[in-house]
Amino acid sequence: MEKTDNNANDLWTEDELLEKTEGIQVHTDLALEARESVTEGEEGIPGVRIEESCSDNSDVKVTRVEVVDERGEKAIGKPKGIYITLEAEQMAVPDEGYHREISKELAHYIGELLESFGCPQSVLVVGLGNHEVTSDSLGPKVLDNLMMTRHLRGENTDGEREKGVRIVSGIVPGVMAQTGMETAEIVRGVVKETNPEAVVVIDALAARSVSRLATTIQLSNTGIQPGSGVGNHRHSLTEESLGIPVIAVGVPTVVAAAAIVYDTVDALSELLEAAGASSAADAVEGMRMDERYQMVRELIEPRFGPMYVTPGNIDERVKRLSFTISEGINIAFQG
Amino acid sequence: MEKTDNNANDLWTEDELLEKTEGIQVHTDLALEARESVTEGEEGIPGVRIEESCSDNSDVKVTRVEVVDERGEKAIGKPKGIYITLEAEQMAVPDEGYHREISKELAHYIGELLESFGCPQSVLVVGLGNHEVTSDSLGPKVLDNLMMTRHLRGENTDGEREKGVRIVSGIVPGVMAQTGMETAEIVRGVVKETNPEAVVVIDALAARSVSRLATTIQLSNTGIQPGSGVGNHRHSLTEESLGIPVIAVGVPTVVAAAAIVYDTVDALSELLEAAGASSAADAVEGMRMDERYQMVRELIEPRFGPMYVTPGNIDERVKRLSFTISEGINIAFQG
Amino acid sequence: MEKTDNNANDLWTEDELLEKTEGIQVHTDLALEARESVTEGEEGIPGVRIEESCSDNSDVKVTRVEVVDERGEKAIGKPKGIYITLEAEQMAVPDEGYHREISKELAHYIGELLESFGCPQSVLVVGLGNHEVTSDSLGPKVLDNLMMTRHLRGENTDGEREKGVRIVSGIVPGVMAQTGMETAEIVRGVVKETNPEAVVVIDALAARSVSRLATTIQLSNTGIQPGSGVGNHRHSLTEESLGIPVIAVGVPTVVAAAAIVYDTVDALSELLEAAGASSAADAVEGMRMDERYQMVRELIEPRFGPMYVTPGNIDERVKRLSFTISEGINIAFQG
Amino acid sequence: MEKTDNNANDLWTEDELLEKTEGIQVHTDLALEARESVTEGEEGIPGVRIEESCSDNSDVKVTRVEVVDERGEKAIGKPKGIYITLEAEQMAVPDEGYHREISKELAHYIGELLESFGCPQSVLVVGLGNHEVTSDSLGPKVLDNLMMTRHLRGENTDGEREKGVRIVSGIVPGVMAQTGMETAEIVRGVVKETNPEAVVVIDALAARSVSRLATTIQLSNTGIQPGSGVGNHRHSLTEESLGIPVIAVGVPTVVAAAAIVYDTVDALSELLEAAGASSAADAVEGMRMDERYQMVRELIEPRFGPMYVTPGNIDERVKRLSFTISEGINIAFQG
Repeated sequence: MEKTDNNANDLWTEDELLEKTEGIQVHTDLALEARESVTEGEEGIPGVRIEESCSDNSDVKVTRVEVVDERGEKAIGKPKGIYITLEAEQMAVPDEGYHREISKELAHYIGELLESFGCPQSVLVVGLGNHEVTSDSLGPKVLDNLMMTRHLRGENTDGEREKGVRIVSGIVPGVMAQTGMETAEIVRGVVKETNPEAVVVIDALAARSVSRLATTIQLSNTGIQPGSGVGNHRHSLTEESLGIPVIAVGVPTVVAAAAIVYDTVDALSELLEAAGASSAADAVEGMRMDERYQMVRELIEPRFGPMYVTPGNIDERVKRLSFTISEGINIAFQG
Repeated sequence: MEKTDNNANDLWTEDELLEKTEGIQVHTDLALEARESVTEGEEGIPGVRIEESCSDNSDVKVTRVEVVDERGEKAIGKPKGIYITLEAEQMAVPDEGYHREISKELAHYIGELLESFGCPQSVLVVGLGNHEVTSDSLGPKVLDNLMMTRHLRGENTDGEREKGVRIVSGIVPGVMAQTGMETAEIVRGVVKETNPEAVVVIDALAARSVSRLATTIQLSNTGIQPGSGVGNHRHSLTEESLGIPVIAVGVPTVVAAAAIVYDTVDALSELLEAAGASSAADAVEGMRMDERYQMVRELIEPRFGPMYVTPGNIDERVKRLSFTISEGINIAFQG
Repeated sequence: MEKTDNNANDLWTEDELLEKTEGIQVHTDLALEARESVTEGEEGIPGVRIEESCSDNSDVKVTRVEVVDERGEKAIGKPKGIYITLEAEQMAVPDEGYHREISKELAHYIGELLESFGCPQSVLVVGLGNHEVTSDSLGPKVLDNLMMTRHLRGENTDGEREKGVRIVSGIVPGVMAQTGMETAEIVRGVVKETNPEAVVVIDALAARSVSRLATTIQLSNTGIQPGSGVGNHRHSLTEESLGIPVIAVGVPTVVAAAAIVYDTVDALSELLEAAGASSAADAVEGMRMDERYQMVRELIEPRFGPMYVTPGNIDERVKRLSFTISEGINIAFQG
Repeated sequence: MEKTDNNANDLWTEDELLEKTEGIQVHTDLALEARESVTEGEEGIPGVRIEESCSDNSDVKVTRVEVVDERGEKAIGKPKGIYITLEAEQMAVPDEGYHREISKELAHYIGELLESFGCPQSVLVVGLGNHEVTSDSLGPKVLDNLMMTRHLRGENTDGEREKGVRIVSGIVPGVMAQTGMETAEIVRGVVKETNPEAVVVIDALAARSVSRLATTIQLSNTGIQPGSGVGNHRHSLTEESLGIPVIAVGVPTVVAAAAIVYDTVDALSELLEAAGASSAADAVEGMRMDERYQMVRELIEPRFGPMYVTPGNIDERVKRLSFTISEGINIAFQG
């Protein structure tokens, strides 16, 4: 039987569906959210360790999600490693000094991850994303305010280690439409040529929930996976691909438009249930995955490429957060 | 009985609802779409005249919607006036010369509207929007490439009328968060001080359908209404408020996120109907307006301010279209 | 006798020369430098009062030049008023917090000038200059980081005066080549429409000495004169032209290229004198003004428009200083 | 005998002087100007071949300077290779289509140089310079409008050679203060990783004469030498350093401020001669090199870093020329 894109009544296998929905599937770059979507057993999620804490000084809620083994990887769909999330509603709101208290928290956890990598003394910071697209401009903007030091101390990265001042270099590689190259190729080339001991990548992320936008910073020691980020990176930037440890720092700035569609279907089902229309609720919930996919397809029209939901004042939020993060990195590196 | 925001089971009057939903209500700045949502009688929509044509040279579909009287205003929710829409999928795609063929079409229709205003010889072009937000940067970008002439010919706008070369000035007033002022105040002040005979405002618009994004240019002789545009202008820029004719040129670059929610509900209802689950479909369709509103509210979280859907490559599209439009205006003014 | 531009041997009257050299004549926007070029008598310069002090906390040298009457105006070529200069070499060098100590000094003196104007409660800040030209982008960059408050408290500027928080609005009017309008026209229009009680203009200035570039901030209560600033404003922005007090805040970012020519001639004369070649020194010094002018003319080629000297790292300096100044204004206005 | 920087009366050897004056010495990146400063013998300059022509269609004057051997290298201080200069005053002035006639000339000569390198099919274009500094932003701006194709055809550069459409990629490496890395390191890394067959570097240049600013395009097959460009590159980008042919395309946008000082001294000497004051003229001309250097030193104050002279409207000129050049490259590569 032939299948056509327009026939919503065909049944696809789950694999076919996954393949088809690539590009419009709902995805979160936050481990925090990935874990929320999993129904926990009594002992939590197998292979995943979670710790929550609250900073006294800064009203920042810190969640540490550690994916310990393959069970954990499978359960929440993120590779093994540590994911630290700092959440604070005040990030989205102006204060006097670009939230120095959050910069300090961030510096603390960057320091912790650096330590776990044996305190690399020379670091290349990569500002991923597109400076022309506001919601994807976090990486380039963070680099704008970062203190570079590598050129001040000669070009070799050996010797000269003094007082914890690290050797910092940085690059904004641009996006594929601007360069014709994969970001990963550019970064790999620069890493091989300049020999840093670690990479820190900064990127704008896609979240599942609009309430996380610009109120959350995620740190991880796993690098960047294919398909992640607002710009949908096609290749990975990881210790495996670059040969040196990679710390990723990200802030969600968009939600995939498809998420809104799926959420609406769920919300409708609940509403009908609450209103006593159980059979209607069941009918909605029972919609086959291919039907849901078809609906998303028609509503979001993926032929226009990925569609994103973003707040109207994203410019102010990204500007503010990019300062908070570059200050955090400056503190972590220069003490 | 007291009502609280969180109680979805309260019944609101339609007026209360409209008030409450302000800010998240689904809205289109395109007369074309406003008219599509109206069920036409046999003689069309009363008070609205529609004409469609297709340009031979440029693959541009031209629709002229004329709102003739108050019946028309009520029917499609747009003030009396002429709305000309140029549609062409190729706008969204690069060619060699920024689609000069579309610039020429645009120049033709700007010329027509100028003529209907008695051929004003001095024009102030206003680039509305926020140059820091990609989807709202059309106005500022168009102004970047516009040929200004007013300062070349002395400051008085009388006399010196030669060979159809118009006296052009322009301003990018910024948005309220940047200036602390209403855009309308700034424009009114500049108009009073520099005495142009007409104003042309350029703005990024909100559409109802993602398929219109960056493939449509709307021209009108009605100016800008409160609540329109990506930046949600609070005050009008119209002949009434400025004292001189106002031509508006706009391109839709976003869809309100709430539109996706409403569309999903409609699509679900249709899907259930098609699947034979009529009662479920009825239940969905029968959801009270306040329930729908409540759902949108929860999904889009308007406390984060307006949320927009926009394509990932909006930067390239806006860049390209801003050239097309500034060239169109240059041709219209300088011949 | 006919004179031609190319004939260096014609003698011009001083007035003719001044007229001819307009545009390439050497000029300083700093009262401090204007006063240095005057030979002081024993009682100082008549009509000019000078006070120097040194801040304990901030290594900032403060010079207050007060032009008291017309004798002073004639002597140093600046209108009656107060000119306060903050000098500190460290401005040009990065620190951790954008030199908050200098921001505080600046806030102190802005507060003093505001007080002398009866503490206006609503202020329009104008960022003069061209954001596309690094050395002329100080004004636009300062506005980027200014806290606007006018829109937060309703549109009327009466009532609502609380705790010294001022009503702040701001505009970046652009330059004539971008708008086709005089900056003064735009500002006048906005002032009339929005009724602030005072204006603060921020501008990049031309100095006489390269050592002042980006190490000096000048404040004055006299506004902006025609011919001043990097962009060479043609019209004034003063209490007389706007109807409300005008405070000007400026930083020198360029030296007119012609200054280098004149300085070279002087330096040569001194060198020859020092080397015992007095008659040669006299010959050089004795060069007629029209010959010097002719030489400048040929070397700088004014047909290319004004030429400026600016340091290679002007971008970093302007960026840093724009933060220092916007913070200074924020402190002055919001306490 | 000890020497101090401040003692102008010490005699330095020419070598010492050259070393000392590094950074403030007067330099031109144009082979055309380098050759003008050499007194030609009857058979021209030994080791240098010069050809001039004038395009019929475009009012462009084309000069080809070929440095044939080491005598030529020594005579004009440029490495062996071909330097093609396109001069046209109209470049500096707006027309309707970004001077497409000049883009075509440029494309022609780029094609010629590519041919001399065996028609490389994959090219990496490097936009040198600092997008934050107007006079140094030519490279980044050219890249903004370049059509990239490498990502459209898969990542390997073998195979797929069709209809003369070249595989184009591009990068804006930034400047050392922004990245902490040498530009040459970044480019070398990207070249090794992505394997283009040739590199085209775009750069803003320093000229000797203000009349060349933004009216001249220089093409060469020699790459970029240390010390050249507005940003003063410290390392070379040449076939030797990168392993593949390098074509350089540059436009002069600044003159070193020191040039104005030296020119003034020469002009003064001529003026005195013309006025009959021969002995004074001799005294001026006879000033020792160390005295001249000392004078430049005091006037330009090299502690502020390199100082440049640039026209006030450099933004418009660079913007216009960047379009002309990117169009030229697009034509050369895509036919």
